[in-house]
Amino acid sequence: MALKIKPQNSCQFDLIALGEVMLRLDPLLSPVRYAKSFDCCEGGGEYNVARGLRANFNLRTAIVTSLVDNEVGHLLEDLILHSGVNSHLIRWRDEDSQLRNGVNFTERGYGQRAAHGVSDRGHTAAMNMQPGDVDWHYIFGKCGCRWFHTGGIFTGLSDSTAQLTIEACKIAQQYGTIVSFDLNYRHSLWRDRGGFDAHENLCNKIAKNVDVLIGDDSHYQDFQACAATKRTVHTACSNDWYAVSYHQGKRCESTHLDKLEILDRVGGGDSFAAGLIYGFMKYNDPAKAVEFGTAHGAIAMTTPGDTTTATIPEVKKIVAGKPARIEN
Amino acid sequence: MALKIKPQNSCQFDLIALGEVMLRLDPLLSPVRYAKSFDCCEGGGEYNVARGLRANFNLRTAIVTSLVDNEVGHLLEDLILHSGVNSHLIRWRDEDSQLRNGVNFTERGYGQRAAHGVSDRGHTAAMNMQPGDVDWHYIFGKCGCRWFHTGGIFTGLSDSTAQLTIEACKIAQQYGTIVSFDLNYRHSLWRDRGGFDAHENLCNKIAKNVDVLIGDDSHYQDFQACAATKRTVHTACSNDWYAVSYHQGKRCESTHLDKLEILDRVGGGDSFAAGLIYGFMKYNDPAKAVEFGTAHGAIAMTTPGDTTTATIPEVKKIVAGKPARIEN
Amino acid sequence: MALKIKPQNSCQFDLIALGEVMLRLDPLLSPVRYAKSFDCCEGGGEYNVARGLRANFNLRTAIVTSLVDNEVGHLLEDLILHSGVNSHLIRWRDEDSQLRNGVNFTERGYGQRAAHGVSDRGHTAAMNMQPGDVDWHYIFGKCGCRWFHTGGIFTGLSDSTAQLTIEACKIAQQYGTIVSFDLNYRHSLWRDRGGFDAHENLCNKIAKNVDVLIGDDSHYQDFQACAATKRTVHTACSNDWYAVSYHQGKRCESTHLDKLEILDRVGGGDSFAAGLIYGFMKYNDPAKAVEFGTAHGAIAMTTPGDTTTATIPEVKKIVAGKPARIEN
Amino acid sequence: MALKIKPQNSCQFDLIALGEVMLRLDPLLSPVRYAKSFDCCEGGGEYNVARGLRANFNLRTAIVTSLVDNEVGHLLEDLILHSGVNSHLIRWRDEDSQLRNGVNFTERGYGQRAAHGVSDRGHTAAMNMQPGDVDWHYIFGKCGCRWFHTGGIFTGLSDSTAQLTIEACKIAQQYGTIVSFDLNYRHSLWRDRGGFDAHENLCNKIAKNVDVLIGDDSHYQDFQACAATKRTVHTACSNDWYAVSYHQGKRCESTHLDKLEILDRVGGGDSFAAGLIYGFMKYNDPAKAVEFGTAHGAIAMTTPGDTTTATIPEVKKIVAGKPARIEN
Amino acid sequence: MALKIKPQNSCQFDLIALGEVMLRLDPLLSPVRYAKSFDCCEGGGEYNVARGLRANFNLRTAIVTSLVDNEVGHLLEDLILHSGVNSHLIRWRDEDSQLRNGVNFTERGYGQRAAHGVSDRGHTAAMNMQPGDVDWHYIFGKCGCRWFHTGGIFTGLSDSTAQLTIEACKIAQQYGTIVSFDLNYRHSLWRDRGGFDAHENLCNKIAKNVDVLIGDDSHYQDFQACAATKRTVHTACSNDWYAVSYHQGKRCESTHLDKLEILDRVGGGDSFAAGLIYGFMKYNDPAKAVEFGTAHGAIAMTTPGDTTTATIPEVKKIVAGKPARIEN
Amino acid sequence: MALKIKPQNSCQFDLIALGEVMLRLDPLLSPVRYAKSFDCCEGGGEYNVARGLRANFNLRTAIVTSLVDNEVGHLLEDLILHSGVNSHLIRWRDEDSQLRNGVNFTERGYGQRAAHGVSDRGHTAAMNMQPGDVDWHYIFGKCGCRWFHTGGIFTGLSDSTAQLTIEACKIAQQYGTIVSFDLNYRHSLWRDRGGFDAHENLCNKIAKNVDVLIGDDSHYQDFQACAATKRTVHTACSNDWYAVSYHQGKRCESTHLDKLEILDRVGGGDSFAAGLIYGFMKYNDPAKAVEFGTAHGAIAMTTPGDTTTATIPEVKKIVAGKPARIEN
Repeated sequence: MALKIKPQNSCQFDLIALGEVMLRLDPLLSPVRYAKSFDCCEGGGEYNVARGLRANFNLRTAIVTSLVDNEVGHLLEDLILHSGVNSHLIRWRDEDSQLRNGVNFTERGYGQRAAHGVSDRGHTAAMNMQPGDVDWHYIFGKCGCRWFHTGGIFTGLSDSTAQLTIEACKIAQQYGTIVSFDLNYRHSLWRDRGGFDAHENLCNKIAKNVDVLIGDDSHYQDFQACAATKRTVHTACSNDWYAVSYHQGKRCESTHLDKLEILDRVGGGDSFAAGLIYGFMKYNDPAKAVEFGTAHGAIAMTTPGDTTTATIPEVKKIVAGKPARIEN
Repeated sequence: MALKIKPQNSCQFDLIALGEVMLRLDPLLSPVRYAKSFDCCEGGGEYNVARGLRANFNLRTAIVTSLVDNEVGHLLEDLILHSGVNSHLIRWRDEDSQLRNGVNFTERGYGQRAAHGVSDRGHTAAMNMQPGDVDWHYIFGKCGCRWFHTGGIFTGLSDSTAQLTIEACKIAQQYGTIVSFDLNYRHSLWRDRGGFDAHENLCNKIAKNVDVLIGDDSHYQDFQACAATKRTVHTACSNDWYAVSYHQGKRCESTHLDKLEILDRVGGGDSFAAGLIYGFMKYNDPAKAVEFGTAHGAIAMTTPGDTTTATIPEVKKIVAGKPARIEN
Repeated sequence: MALKIKPQNSCQFDLIALGEVMLRLDPLLSPVRYAKSFDCCEGGGEYNVARGLRANFNLRTAIVTSLVDNEVGHLLEDLILHSGVNSHLIRWRDEDSQLRNGVNFTERGYGQRAAHGVSDRGHTAAMNMQPGDVDWHYIFGKCGCRWFHTGGIFTGLSDSTAQLTIEACKIAQQYGTIVSFDLNYRHSLWRDRGGFDAHENLCNKIAKNVDVLIGDDSHYQDFQACAATKRTVHTACSNDWYAVSYHQGKRCESTHLDKLEILDRVGGGDSFAAGLIYGFMKYNDPAKAVEFGTAHGAIAMTTPGDTTTATIPEVKKIVAGKPARIEN
Repeated sequence: MALKIKPQNSCQFDLIALGEVMLRLDPLLSPVRYAKSFDCCEGGGEYNVARGLRANFNLRTAIVTSLVDNEVGHLLEDLILHSGVNSHLIRWRDEDSQLRNGVNFTERGYGQRAAHGVSDRGHTAAMNMQPGDVDWHYIFGKCGCRWFHTGGIFTGLSDSTAQLTIEACKIAQQYGTIVSFDLNYRHSLWRDRGGFDAHENLCNKIAKNVDVLIGDDSHYQDFQACAATKRTVHTACSNDWYAVSYHQGKRCESTHLDKLEILDRVGGGDSFAAGLIYGFMKYNDPAKAVEFGTAHGAIAMTTPGDTTTATIPEVKKIVAGKPARIEN
Repeated sequence: MALKIKPQNSCQFDLIALGEVMLRLDPLLSPVRYAKSFDCCEGGGEYNVARGLRANFNLRTAIVTSLVDNEVGHLLEDLILHSGVNSHLIRWRDEDSQLRNGVNFTERGYGQRAAHGVSDRGHTAAMNMQPGDVDWHYIFGKCGCRWFHTGGIFTGLSDSTAQLTIEACKIAQQYGTIVSFDLNYRHSLWRDRGGFDAHENLCNKIAKNVDVLIGDDSHYQDFQACAATKRTVHTACSNDWYAVSYHQGKRCESTHLDKLEILDRVGGGDSFAAGLIYGFMKYNDPAKAVEFGTAHGAIAMTTPGDTTTATIPEVKKIVAGKPARIEN
Repeated sequence: MALKIKPQNSCQFDLIALGEVMLRLDPLLSPVRYAKSFDCCEGGGEYNVARGLRANFNLRTAIVTSLVDNEVGHLLEDLILHSGVNSHLIRWRDEDSQLRNGVNFTERGYGQRAAHGVSDRGHTAAMNMQPGDVDWHYIFGKCGCRWFHTGGIFTGLSDSTAQLTIEACKIAQQYGTIVSFDLNYRHSLWRDRGGFDAHENLCNKIAKNVDVLIGDDSHYQDFQACAATKRTVHTACSNDWYAVSYHQGKRCESTHLDKLEILDRVGGGDSFAAGLIYGFMKYNDPAKAVEFGTAHGAIAMTTPGDTTTATIPEVKKIVAGKPARIEN
C-alpha cells in the first residue's frame, strides 16, 4: 500500500511550503570575500521544494512566508513570481528600519576549495512569524492542498517559527494533507541556542505530525516514509551521489551516480526532496520516488543557483540511465 | 585668519572618520526590484570622506567603525584595504546570527526616474557601538590626528552611536584636532524616532564640539566654518551644482556648474566634503576649499559607485574652468 | 459621463490582450550587425500593454497568443510567467520544422544614430492563428473581462489574424467588455501587402467594434475615446513627449515633458497605452488617463527593454510634476 | 597511392563548402529556456569545415550559401568576414517578411545534463536555394578549387537543396575537384519527410559523386576514402574520443583520447572533418589525416562556439601526444 | 574641376593606409586606473581611415604596417581580418623580448571628466619600420591604388617612419595615386623630440608630396584640397561639431551639429577623414565630401571603439538632416 | 635545528620581495588571439609571494620594484594597494615614451589546450633598475626585515637586475635576513641571451648569498633548505601535485594531491613558495612548511588570477586532509 494522497481535483494546491525565502547573492567563480559582483536569485530550503515542483514538474504550489515591503522584498516577490510559485500567501510587513528580508551570500567552491556561505538572516520578517499569523484552516480546509512541506531550517529560526510549524503540521493532517519535513540541520542557526541536541529535541516534537521524513533513514522508521541522500565528497567538483528510502518496512536504494560533475551543489538536497515528492504524488511508488529524487538532485547540481531547471524528460532520461547525449 | 590645523609631521593621521561602512550593491542600469545582478563596493557617508581624501588626495586617513567577523565583513575589509584607508581601528565583533554588517541596495535613476535605495542596516555591529568602546585618547593623543570627521548618519543609527560621537568630538578638540560634522539627515533613520526635529535636537547638542559644519549654511554662523552644496535637480541625469561656505563672517560661492551630466549621484555630497576639507588642509583658504569641494563632488557624480576616482590634476582642471578635453 | 466599464468583482480578468509575443534580442550599446552578445526579453505591441498593467499597475491580465512547443517557446513562456501576465490562454502548437516563434532584433540608437530593428516574424504560430481558434464566449462570457486590447501589429500579420481580431472585438463588445485598438502601423508588415492604404482599410473595418482608439487623434472622433502621443525627436537620446486625448468632444492635453532623456525608446507607445487604460479603469477620467499614459510612457523609455518597470508611486510622482529626487 | 588533389597554384580556392550559415545563440552556462542573455557566433555543419581550414590551417576557403539582406544577414556576413572565409559567393536575397536567416539556439550541457538545441531554420534563404542558382562552372572551372565539401545537413533542408548538391558534386568532379560529404543525419530535418530511411536513400544517390565520405566507416568501402569519429559519452563534460579512416582497403585508427574534458561539444565533428581534410591536402596520408582530424576535433571541444580556435602547432602537439603544458 | 582620381577598375585597391595598428584596451565606464576589465579592439589614426572606408563604405582597402609574430600580434591580425581591411601587406617580425606590438589604454570620459589615454607604444615593430622595407613600386605600380593615406602619428613615431612616409608619398604620386595626410599632432610623441615645432617642420617637408591635407584649413592653401573639423567641447558627453574644406579656392562649410551627444569621442577625426575621402572618391565634390566627413565622424562618436559602425544609408540620413527616427 | 629567523617585533617587515609587477590581462575562457575582453590583475613571480603572505597569511610584506608614472602604473599601484602589500618602496620613473610598465597576456587552457602567455615586458622600468638604485641598508638595517625573497625571473630581465639582486642578497644576509630564491627559469627571457646555461651560471653566482632555494631539490644540498613542487600534467584541468623539501639532510615529502582540479594554474608555484615560507616563519618546521606550500599552491589553482585567495583555515583544512565540504 502507498501514501494516502488527496486527489488533484479536490484541492487548489498540490503543495504548500512553509519557510523563509532569502535573496541569494552568488559571486560566481570568486570567493565572497574577493567578489566584485554578484548574480542574484531567490532561495530557501523549504521554498526550493515548492519551486522545483512548480517550475520543473508543473504542479500548483504556493509558499507561506513573510517579507518586508521594501525594494528587496519586491525583488524577492518578482523572483518568486518568475518561479511560478503562488505568492498570494506571503505576509507583507511594513518597512521598518529594524525588520529585514534575509540575504544569503554563497560561493560555490571549486576542486579543493569548498563551497561556503554567510546567511545574513537575523531579524527577518520570516523569523518573526508567530503562531496565529496564518489562517491554516482557510488554506488546508477551504482551498485544499495535497501535500505540506516544511523543515528544520524554518523551525530553527526562532521559537515562534517552531511553534508556527507545529501548528501548521497538526492542522494539515486534520484535513488529510500529507506532511513532509526535511531535517536540514544548520549549525549556524543553533550555535547559540543549544546546538544539535536542541535541534533534535525540537524535531522529535514535530515528528508526531509528520508523515514523510527527509534527511535521515536510520532512526525514524515509524514514519510512513523516510528518505535520505548519500553523498561522498571527492572535491567540490566531483561527488558520488545516491539515495535511500524506507516505506512500510521496505528499503529502496536508487541508482548510484558516481563521480558526478558538480557546478553548484547548493540546493541539491532540496531538489532531491522535490523529485521524491513528485515520485510519490505521480506514481505513489517509493522506488520511483527515490529515483526521481536522485536524478532531479543530480541535475540541480549541474546548473547555477539553488534550484534545478530540469524538465521532466531530462529527469526521466537520468532515471532511465541514458548518458548525456546531444539531440539534433 | 584661518583654521588652526595641527602640522602634518606632528600626527600619524591627517583625518579619521567615525561612521558605518556598508556593502553597496549596485544594480547598474536596472531598478533594484528587477535586478539580475549587482556590482559591489563599500560606502558610508562619513567613511566616503576618508576614502576620498586617501584615494584621491593622498592623505593618511583611517576609519573607526565596527564589523562582524564573517565573509561579508571580510569583503568590506578587503574593499577598505583597496581604498587605502587604514583599517586597523576597525572593531571586529564575533560572528553571531543576530549581529550584522550593513548592506545598501541603491539604484542610480535615469532621466525622469529618480535614484532610490534600501539601506538594510538594522542590527549592525556599527549601530551597536557604545561610548567607551574606542580609546580616543590613544587615537587623538598618542597617534595624533589633524582632523576628525563624522556626521548625522552615524549619530542617527542609535542612541549609543550618538553618545559615542559626542564623546569622540570632545576628546578630539581637547587634543587640538579640527572636528567637522556633516548633517546628512536621513528620514529612514528617524522615521520611528522623532523625525527631523529629533535629528535637529541631537545636532544642536553635538554642535558645541564641532568646528566645521557641512550641509547647512543658514543657521549655524557660530561655527568656525560652515558649507553647503546647492543642487537643482532637472532630471536624474542633469543637475545644476554649486556650493557656498562661510568663514569668519565671509561668504564664498563656488563656480556654478550648470546642467552637470550625472552618471551616479550617490556620494556627491561626501565628495564635496572631502574636497572642502582638502582645500582647508592644503591651503587653509575657504574660497579654495569651496571650489575644491564643488569640483570634487562634480567628478564623483560622473563615475559609478559612492566615491570619486578623481586625481588632484583633474580636480584642479575643473577648478580652473577648463572643459573636458582629451589628452593625447 | 465616462466609459461604461464592468465592475472588477464581476470579472476574472481586468484586461486581455490579443497579439504576438516575440523574443526580443537586445545588443545593448552595439548595433545589431556588430553584436557579440544579446540580452533577451519578451515583447510585442499588444502584449506589452497587458504586461505593463500587470507588472506595474497590479491588474489581472492575460495574453491570447500562440507559441510553438520548443525551447524558444518555453523561454518565452518563462518570460511571460515572470511578467505575471496569465499564460493559460496561450495556444501551444506542436514542434514542426517550418512553424516558428517570432524573434526581434532591436538596437537602441544613441544621439544621431537611430534605433533600428529586424523583426524575424515570418511563419510564426501567432500569424497562423485563425478565426475559430479561440473560444471567446468562454473568455468574455464565462470568465469575464473588463477590457480587451489589440492593435494594428497583430492584425497586420496575416489575413487570418485580421479576421480573428474582428471576431474577438465583436464578441467582447457583446459581453460589455471595453475594446481598445492601437493603430501601430508597421511598414515592414504591409510592404508586400498594399502598404499604408491596405492597413487603413483594415482599420476602418475593425473600427466599428472599437471603443477606444489609440495612435490617432484626428480622424476618428466617433469613438468613445481616442488618444495619441506627440513626440519630437531631437536625437535618439532626447525627445519632447506629450499626449492628447478626446472623449465626448473634450480635448485633454497632458503635461509636456520636453527634452526627455531616453535610454531605450522601444515600448514607449505601449506603455502610454497601459497608463492610459489604467487611468480610465481606475479613475474613469480622460484627463487623468492621458497624464498617466504620458508619465508611464516616459518612465518606460528610461529603462532597458520593451516595457516599463515603473511603480504606481513613481508614475504619480511624474504626474505630480516632481523632479527626479533621491529618497534616503 | 593517395588522393589525386590538384596543385595549390592551379586554383584560387583550396576548399569551397556548400551549406547553410546560421546565427548561433549560446546561453553559456544556462539552459535556453531560462536564459537571460546569449553570446552569438556563426555556424553550420558544412561551413564550419571551411572556417576551420581558413582560420586554423590558413587555407583559402569560401562558402556558397544564401542570406537575406537585413541586419541579421549582415551580422552573419560580419562574422563570416571575421573568420576569413571568402564571402563573395554568398547569394543575397532581398528583405522580405517571410524569408529568413537561420537562427540556432544551442545549450552546452554539463555533467548529467545533455547539450540541447533548437534550430529555428524554417523558410530560410539557404533552404530556398535551387539548382541553377550557382554558376558552378565559373567556380570550379574558371576560379579553380582543390576540394569541395558539403553534407547531409544542407541536403536535408529541402528537395531543392538536395538537387543543388547533386549538381554541384557532379560539376566539381568534372573539373578534378575532390568531393567530400559528411553524412550528419539530423532527425529534426527528416521528422516530417521520411526519417532516417529517406535521408539514407538521398545519401546513396549523392554517393556516386563523392570521393571522401565522412561520418560512417562501415557501409561505404567503395569510396576513395571514408572516416568516422568514435565517441563514448560519459557525461556532457567527459567523453572518450578517437577516429577511424579507410583508404584503399587500409584501416587507420587514431590515438585514443580517453576522458577528454569537454567545454562545448558542438562542432567537434566538423572540426574533425577540417583536420582530416587538412591532413589529406597537406600530407596526402590517411594515417596523418585521421590524427589531425582527431586532434583538431578534440581542441574544438575545449573552446566555446562551433569551431576550434586552434593553431597548427597546438594540433601538432596533440598529434605528438604531448600533454597540456604551460609555455613561459 | 576636381581631383584627378584613377578609375576603380584600373586598381586592385581603392585606398592603402600606412600607419601603426595598436591594441586598444577600453575600460568602458571606469577610469583606467581603477579598471577591473577591458574590452579590446584594434585602432590607429591612419588605419582607422582604411577601416572606415572598408567596413562602412565597402571600398577595397589595405594597411601597410608591421607586427610582431606573437599572440598579441595575432589578436591584432584577427581584429584587422574582422574589419575587412586587407592584411597581406603587414610585415611580420619574429618574436623578440624587446620588440613589441603597441597597446593603447583609453578611457572615454563623462561629463566634466575628460577622455584620457596612455599609448604604450615604445619599441614597437611599427616604429622600427625603415625606408626600403616596403616595395612601393609593387603596391602603387603593379597592384594599383587610387588613394594613399597617412599622417602625423605614424611620421611622429621615429625618424625612420618619417623617412619611410616621404618615400611612400613620392612613389604614390609617381603612379598617379592621390595622397592625403592627416596632421594629427600628438604631444606625447614629440615631448622629447622638439615638440610642436619639430612636428611642423617635418610636416612641411612631407607637404610637397601631399594632395589633400586634413586637420588644418588655415595655412596650407596650396594643396589641391584641405579640410578640418571644428569642435567645441561643452562636456565629455556634448560637443558642437562641423567641418570646413577648401578646394580650388572655394570654401565649403558643413552642416553644424550642435550639442552632439557623444558616447566615445576617440576616432571621430579619423572617421571624418574616411567620410571626406569617400565623398571625394564617390562624387568628387568638396561640398559633399565635407558633409559625408562630418556625418560619418558624428556617428562614430555614438558608438564604442575607435571607428564608426555606420552604414552608407545612416550617413546619408544625417547628411540629409533627418533626425534619429526608429524604423519599423 | 631550524632556520635562524629574526623575531617579528625586531623588524618592520616580515618579508620583502624584489621583482617586477606586471599587469596581467586574462581573456577568461578565450584564447588570447580571439579575445574580446580581458579581466585584469597584477602579478609577478617574486611579488606573488609577498602578496600571498600578506593577503592570505596576514604578514607585513613589501615589494621593491619600479613603475612608470602613467595611468597603467597607477592601475598597478591601485592593485598592489588592494593586495595590502606595502607600496612605499616602489621607485617611480617619469613618464617617457620609451619606458614602460610590463603587461602580461595569459590564457588558462582547458583540457587538451595548454595554458599559454605573452609577456610584453621589454623596456620596462623594472628591467632598467640598477645596482645603487635602492638603499638596502635603510631597508634591511633601519626598517628591519625577517625574510627577503627574489628569483630567476627578475634576475633574468637584464644584467643590471642581476647585479641589483646580488647586491640585495648580500646586504640582506649581513643584517641576518633569511634570503630565498625561486629559480623560475623562463625561456623567453634567455632565448637571446644564452639560454638555460646562462641562467644556470647566473644562479650559481647568486647561490652563495641564498639560504633557501626553491624550484630544485637535486643539485643544491648545500643550502640551508631547498624545496620543489612535483607536478604531473594530465590535462590543463587535471594535475597531480605534491612537493619535496630538504633541510639539514632530511627529506620531507608532502601529501600527494592527485587529479587536482585546476581552474587557472598560473601562480601555483608562487603560492607554493608563499605557503612554504609561512610554514618556516610560523613553525620553523620543514615538514609543516612543505605541507603548507603544497596546500596553498593547490588552492591557488582553483581561483582565477595569479595568486590564491585562500584563508589560513582553508589551507589548514587541506593540510589536515579534509575534503571540500560545505559549511552551513
